[in-house]
Amino acid sequence: MKQVTKSQIRKVLGRAIRKHREQLDLTQEELAERAEVHRTYLADIERGSRNPSVESVRRIAYALGVSISELFKTAEQDS
Amino acid sequence: MKQVTKSQIRKVLGRAIRKHREQLDLTQEELAERAEVHRTYLADIERGSRNPSVESVRRIAYALGVSISELFKTAEQDS
Repeated sequence: MKQVTKSQIRKVLGRAIRKHREQLDLTQEELAERAEVHRTYLADIERGSRNPSVESVRRIAYALGVSISELFKTAEQDS
Repeated sequence: MKQVTKSQIRKVLGRAIRKHREQLDLTQEELAERAEVHRTYLADIERGSRNPSVESVRRIAYALGVSISELFKTAEQDS
């Protein structure tokens, strides 16, 4: 099992969210609205400057149409 | 995709951690030490009374010898 390091986890999760968002052709604003999170909070998460809670990740994953495990799988493949 | 509801996510994640921990025949104390989290924090997460951050889940998953996506897969199957 390839492990994501402590310093990588925020970055690869943020990039995975951005990747799925761009695949859906959504802006940060549109995704933030769907996920019911603040646009700047989402921007921070995508940039890797936040350590979001499981409940926030759940909301974002479903707004992207993927399961939580699928979102982390995308993140882990990027590490 | 079967979605874990907001009210379920803490419970199913907690149960998934407990399930993997028991498969390894570890006590809460032993897992907490491996994951470098406080034992009462781990107990709260297993009980579903905490909304842990991604970085905490990462530490716990790796201490259990599974990837983050695998841990959430176990949780999602339980919902």
